[in-house]
Amino acid sequence: MTGDKLLPSIREAIRQCGLRDGMTVSFHHHLRDGDGVLPMVMGVIGEMGFRNIRVSASSIHASHGIVADLIRKGVVDRIDTNFLGRSVGDTVSAGFMPEPAVLRTHGGRPLALEAGETAIDIAFIAASAADRMGNMNGVDGPSAFGSMGHAFADAAFAEKVVVVTNHLVPYPLHRVSIDETHVDHVVVVPSLGDVAGIKSGLTTMTRDPMGLRIARLAADAVEHSGLLADGFNYQSGGGRTSQAVTQFVREAMKRRKVTGGFLLGGINSLAVAMLEEGLFGSALDAQCFDLEAVDSLRRNPSHTEISCSRYANYNAPSRCCAQLGAVVLGATEIDVNFDVNVHTESLGIIMGGSGGHSDIAKGAELTVIVTPLVRARSSVVVEKVACRSTPGECVDLLVTQYGIAVNPARPELRARLAEAGLPLKDIEELLAIARRMTGTPKPVAFGEKIVAEVVGYDGKRTDVIRQAVFQE
Amino acid sequence: MTGDKLLPSIREAIRQCGLRDGMTVSFHHHLRDGDGVLPMVMGVIGEMGFRNIRVSASSIHASHGIVADLIRKGVVDRIDTNFLGRSVGDTVSAGFMPEPAVLRTHGGRPLALEAGETAIDIAFIAASAADRMGNMNGVDGPSAFGSMGHAFADAAFAEKVVVVTNHLVPYPLHRVSIDETHVDHVVVVPSLGDVAGIKSGLTTMTRDPMGLRIARLAADAVEHSGLLADGFNYQSGGGRTSQAVTQFVREAMKRRKVTGGFLLGGINSLAVAMLEEGLFGSALDAQCFDLEAVDSLRRNPSHTEISCSRYANYNAPSRCCAQLGAVVLGATEIDVNFDVNVHTESLGIIMGGSGGHSDIAKGAELTVIVTPLVRARSSVVVEKVACRSTPGECVDLLVTQYGIAVNPARPELRARLAEAGLPLKDIEELLAIARRMTGTPKPVAFGEKIVAEVVGYDGKRTDVIRQAVFQE
Repeated sequence: MTGDKLLPSIREAIRQCGLRDGMTVSFHHHLRDGDGVLPMVMGVIGEMGFRNIRVSASSIHASHGIVADLIRKGVVDRIDTNFLGRSVGDTVSAGFMPEPAVLRTHGGRPLALEAGETAIDIAFIAASAADRMGNMNGVDGPSAFGSMGHAFADAAFAEKVVVVTNHLVPYPLHRVSIDETHVDHVVVVPSLGDVAGIKSGLTTMTRDPMGLRIARLAADAVEHSGLLADGFNYQSGGGRTSQAVTQFVREAMKRRKVTGGFLLGGINSLAVAMLEEGLFGSALDAQCFDLEAVDSLRRNPSHTEISCSRYANYNAPSRCCAQLGAVVLGATEIDVNFDVNVHTESLGIIMGGSGGHSDIAKGAELTVIVTPLVRARSSVVVEKVACRSTPGECVDLLVTQYGIAVNPARPELRARLAEAGLPLKDIEELLAIARRMTGTPKPVAFGEKIVAEVVGYDGKRTDVIRQAVFQE
Repeated sequence: MTGDKLLPSIREAIRQCGLRDGMTVSFHHHLRDGDGVLPMVMGVIGEMGFRNIRVSASSIHASHGIVADLIRKGVVDRIDTNFLGRSVGDTVSAGFMPEPAVLRTHGGRPLALEAGETAIDIAFIAASAADRMGNMNGVDGPSAFGSMGHAFADAAFAEKVVVVTNHLVPYPLHRVSIDETHVDHVVVVPSLGDVAGIKSGLTTMTRDPMGLRIARLAADAVEHSGLLADGFNYQSGGGRTSQAVTQFVREAMKRRKVTGGFLLGGINSLAVAMLEEGLFGSALDAQCFDLEAVDSLRRNPSHTEISCSRYANYNAPSRCCAQLGAVVLGATEIDVNFDVNVHTESLGIIMGGSGGHSDIAKGAELTVIVTPLVRARSSVVVEKVACRSTPGECVDLLVTQYGIAVNPARPELRARLAEAGLPLKDIEELLAIARRMTGTPKPVAFGEKIVAEVVGYDGKRTDVIRQAVFQE
């Protein structure tokens, strides 16, 4: 009989997996800002005196500030992630790491693991329920967080896999997302963190009049794009304006009696409502954005958990995002070539990342960027983005409160929207309007050192980010 | 948008996958004797004029006789399978193939694929439901056959994967066993074969008095083995006597108020009944043996589909069969070392294979072989088996109508059964009893040529089978 895989502590799991200096450990971020597993494990790794560890995480969130400390102490010297929040982004931008962070996309992470372009020595996978052999899911237990989309590739490709759970069930767990054949050890901990945190950073629909105006324009553009017909597949980002767009698209679908195919995401309560009222036949879920989505995934057979490879792996034989009709996304900056920056803020400091941005912008037939024209006294439209996160050829529309700019590569789309009477502007016009409000900013100053490499949907480098010059 | 993967014909799929002479094509056998997909595909491959194709099939059944023709024509020159029924076994035993067939186990097949010891160029996977991107399952549609346990490894490791279905559903299929990231092409065919055939070769409980006596003894041995306690995990083979043992074990569990952990298999209606009456908490299902099992897998959350890797891959971090308490299996021959032959019949001709025999005999704490002492005027107990399918160190008990032989390596088990008053005999005694009935047979004559290699649960060769000498 095979022995149990249960180990008494994270420390013992690290020891039995044979962690050594220079190795790579991985994490998923399904608990988002509520995640307690990465800090717990990295804390132990730090205590145990390891050096030069690479952190491979599907996302680095606000609760992961310990990584910044560990970078300064030399415990962590490399980062491979799809999103690098400000809590650690500051430290990376300041140049404290000897090697550039590698900033991928949600689909690019499984792509790179599959292609052998990156590797994981030990994956620590938080599971809201597991049995002693490591069969696991994210839908059972008191800390249910829903889809385990980001964890599938780690489980498949890591040399060693440690399941971390606060809810051990008798063997065998009935509903299994990732099975025991991938798992080496199981550690039971008192808590995975704060499951309420999965909603953090993702908000409900805006009530701000300007945001609503932008959302209305964007929804009108979707409605008149020619895509809003039966079988229409849809995704929106988690931002407040994007959510408002979705609400307006929902109303347009009802008005036009359109029944969509699938909702893709990033699923939240708004998507669940649309699924339940039959506006869409399915929800394909790589990550739950709130507890209503978790509950839906648990009980609704038309709400299906998918891996991030299925979501967006550009090298897979197919990927869901390539079937999207429309997607609505945000931007930190967008330039006159429609190139979008979602990695750095106005001073050039890393505070985000692509997540699925570049993947789904490439995949969707219609990619709509919604943003106020001016944010914090800076123009969002610029001559050249500080970081090319998503290439302009993947972006079709920019929607601001001053009107809609259509990518010149889409004249037929421009014609449709013009015919519908929507307020169109060239993107240069929008830039000029913004400049009248903000003046021409002086260029952001960067140092010489490359602190991050930005890798696009296809696994190829699209840009680099240089050291930030922190200003008083 | 990614194009559909739908192709109009098997022929076109073969063409687009780039089949060439010398390549390997694979199949699963979840439709068992009812399978129409292997014959359909191999027929087309023959028509297209390919040569020296290797057939890698989880099992070769009665409906697969076309493979024998194709061997004779040189279309097929190698076979890799876990079970080789008489329809093709005759031809292999006669020496018509230039290279030995490789006869593995159900767990050894994924083991070998994972280890790179064998490979598949094109996997043809029958699915009872699929969407146009290749998401598939075995539980929906008119030809639902249940678990796809054998197909997971093929999907994961084949260079190209073609889904063959008679039930195309709108994208996305909701319940997905194997997802689109593994699939290159989808072909819709009128029929997968005769789903009623999944029951063929597997029968209901024996009513024959001798079979019932053997079954009663075997169940008594299980009951008094010390293993029949809460959490007991159980599997039985599909034979008539094994099924009767299960029925008696069921009664013993009720009498003793024992609640088992999981049933493993090969799940059939008897297992479903035990699951539903709460005698076991779960059924772990690598293959459905009848339509009641298919229905249960579809609707009962405690009936879980598992891959054959999870079932029995000896190199995986864990495998279900290693948690078995008792397993009841058949044998063609068993020798005084308890080595078991399930590959060849009394004249040395290949007519079967291990399937999971060797895997679960190794895995279980108590392995019980049930067989009449004499079959077709030959003794089942022999001095040395013609083929060592499952090594004697994995076998604990032989139960015949003349009594129970305990492997001498298990004195504590012998003591328990003796204390319970069960009729124990040394295996040599059983051999002597048989010899008095049958006389001493002349040894089976074999030719020199090796026609098959037998690979055990650990992926290592346990024996070879030589050319049969066909007698008039």
